[in-house]
Amino acid sequence: MRPVAIVGIGKTPFGAFQDRDLRSLGVEAGQKCLENAGARPSRVEAFYLGNFAGPSFVGQNHLAPYIAGAMGIEGVPATRLEAACASGGSAFFHAFSSVAAGLYDVVLVTGVEKMTSQPTPRVSEILAGAGDLAGEIKAGATFAALFAMIARRHMHQYGTTREQMAAVAVKNHANAFKNPYAHMRKLITLEQALAGKPIAEPLTIYDCSLISDGAASVLLAPLERAAEFAGKPVLVAGIAQTSGPVALDEREDITTFAAVRKAAEKAYRMAGVTAAEIQFAELHDCFTIAEIMAMEDVGFVKPGEGGPYVQQGATALGGARPVNASGGLKAKGHPVGATGVAQVCDVVEQIRGAAGERQVRNHDLGLAQNLGGSGASAVVTILRAAR
Amino acid sequence: MRPVAIVGIGKTPFGAFQDRDLRSLGVEAGQKCLENAGARPSRVEAFYLGNFAGPSFVGQNHLAPYIAGAMGIEGVPATRLEAACASGGSAFFHAFSSVAAGLYDVVLVTGVEKMTSQPTPRVSEILAGAGDLAGEIKAGATFAALFAMIARRHMHQYGTTREQMAAVAVKNHANAFKNPYAHMRKLITLEQALAGKPIAEPLTIYDCSLISDGAASVLLAPLERAAEFAGKPVLVAGIAQTSGPVALDEREDITTFAAVRKAAEKAYRMAGVTAAEIQFAELHDCFTIAEIMAMEDVGFVKPGEGGPYVQQGATALGGARPVNASGGLKAKGHPVGATGVAQVCDVVEQIRGAAGERQVRNHDLGLAQNLGGSGASAVVTILRAAR
Repeated sequence: MRPVAIVGIGKTPFGAFQDRDLRSLGVEAGQKCLENAGARPSRVEAFYLGNFAGPSFVGQNHLAPYIAGAMGIEGVPATRLEAACASGGSAFFHAFSSVAAGLYDVVLVTGVEKMTSQPTPRVSEILAGAGDLAGEIKAGATFAALFAMIARRHMHQYGTTREQMAAVAVKNHANAFKNPYAHMRKLITLEQALAGKPIAEPLTIYDCSLISDGAASVLLAPLERAAEFAGKPVLVAGIAQTSGPVALDEREDITTFAAVRKAAEKAYRMAGVTAAEIQFAELHDCFTIAEIMAMEDVGFVKPGEGGPYVQQGATALGGARPVNASGGLKAKGHPVGATGVAQVCDVVEQIRGAAGERQVRNHDLGLAQNLGGSGASAVVTILRAAR
Repeated sequence: MRPVAIVGIGKTPFGAFQDRDLRSLGVEAGQKCLENAGARPSRVEAFYLGNFAGPSFVGQNHLAPYIAGAMGIEGVPATRLEAACASGGSAFFHAFSSVAAGLYDVVLVTGVEKMTSQPTPRVSEILAGAGDLAGEIKAGATFAALFAMIARRHMHQYGTTREQMAAVAVKNHANAFKNPYAHMRKLITLEQALAGKPIAEPLTIYDCSLISDGAASVLLAPLERAAEFAGKPVLVAGIAQTSGPVALDEREDITTFAAVRKAAEKAYRMAGVTAAEIQFAELHDCFTIAEIMAMEDVGFVKPGEGGPYVQQGATALGGARPVNASGGLKAKGHPVGATGVAQVCDVVEQIRGAAGERQVRNHDLGLAQNLGGSGASAVVTILRAAR
């Protein structure tokens, strides 16, 4: 395994774009990324596409050559990877692995989703496909309902409060307000968050991430060849993808995601760092309770301490360890297949010191955590400034 | 890159199974494969799932951990790969690459599709997602129509005849008749094939592959560890996945698939063999014309000679170079995501000398070719008896 660097990134804005189709979003992110890296499409030796449900959202399938071809990338392996909401992270993981193992030198990863062309009930139905249709979904659950049950149990077991969950939303909205690529740039107060329209008790509309369109791309190369590219290189120090049971009722404990814990352990070991050393992170806040659990599962705090940690301001932009400086899935937006790749782009921007108004103070070592469904897939990535 | 062996295979029958769900098919193939290899699920270090459109056919997404979990495979990367009708081949390619590069030692690949729960018009619509929805499909084409245009052009350019295409169907039906796992075990005559119900001129119902349910699995390990497994090892001598434009109108020549030609060249180079040395093959006969083109594109014959080659009987079970001894997609069946993995299983059975009534005479060196859409994805694999 040789060291691998990110040598280029590219993102589209996240939002609801009636005039944009899925392919054009993927192509825009890919082209911006190649431009950022100063690389021609012909240099790309393999293409990995993260996409959750393009065929269900817009009908189009066979998306990897469809998007690659439109960028002028042909004749190479072009493959779509799906791991529910961790599809982007999984595409990045497999792309990284292929470069680390020496299969290829220059690999492009794109994550993309186009969700807003469907009405919300249909979007919920498509998202439910990431759960156990034959079990929990058949019984009437939506993903909001699954995470509501998780939140209830976390509240019961650890005393986590609605105010602590709302504090995640307030913080992430404040961060997205400073992010020109964010879907929702609107400041909210704790009172507003608590008084939000109920979705699945105890979750209000402000506890739920957004339905968005968008794409993000990353170009990978061996660290020893990073100087050939224009983008300031960032080292992939550690990474792991893991899996667990899809159905919530197959878990012993729903206040923690075993797949995330295991992925984090593996990534820390690979990077040779501890959770305590991580300076900032992009965590998978599909619901506010998920950000609280993620902080616990990646080891930033002990189980049950996630709520107080956010409430104390530790994870604010100016706090001891900023979480979701981008605005997170909650306010930056959550175009499912794009999310895991966008998280990596956002950590890279921070490490490069190029995050503008949302730049964090200490930015040498960052973490991205991408979750699939209610925890059946997880990807954890640790990025470090290339010395 | 270290040598990699197939150390286990498992297949479900192909057919229309009203009482079977997608997961149970994938689990059956995986468990049979582990049993064939004499390996416990806990030995599997990564899981690659080939599936084209489970979410569209049955609603369920996030299929890799869903199927892996039901087999007792947890805590490892479990990822679904999609490359249209080459999804299975692509999953196998990526699994192979991961073992060859030393990322993992024991990797399970499963391909699965459950198609028959949808009415045929909806199946056609889902399959059309593998074409260019914004172009050729919007203009009214189905996949049968796309391959009808390809057939017309091949007939015009090379004098290929309807009789030659029908000969492919007759041969593959005869082979499937001997395959207890085939979807359609029915002998047909040339006259019947020619008089079939027109689907898209010049293609009749007998020129089209079947809409099927089914799954297939393969277990991979480094050759040097093959002795640890019960299954007689077969060497993956050469393999490549390539891509090209999705839309037919973006090609200079529609009588050949550039992606297949390139994948074959790369696979031959890797294996250190020529097309002439290949003794038998499983080729992607989604339509009869596709088998004729595949023989030309992998270099068994020159462009335009595919039709006469099948008509002369060279590719029959007792011929000089048997093609689709399994019955092919045409009669064995074509559960899309399973097909590429099933082809590999069928070549392995031949090399092991375990193909029963459909055993070919010379079976040391075989080839499998898997096509995505109308040629935008291609995977070519060369398998050899492990010495």
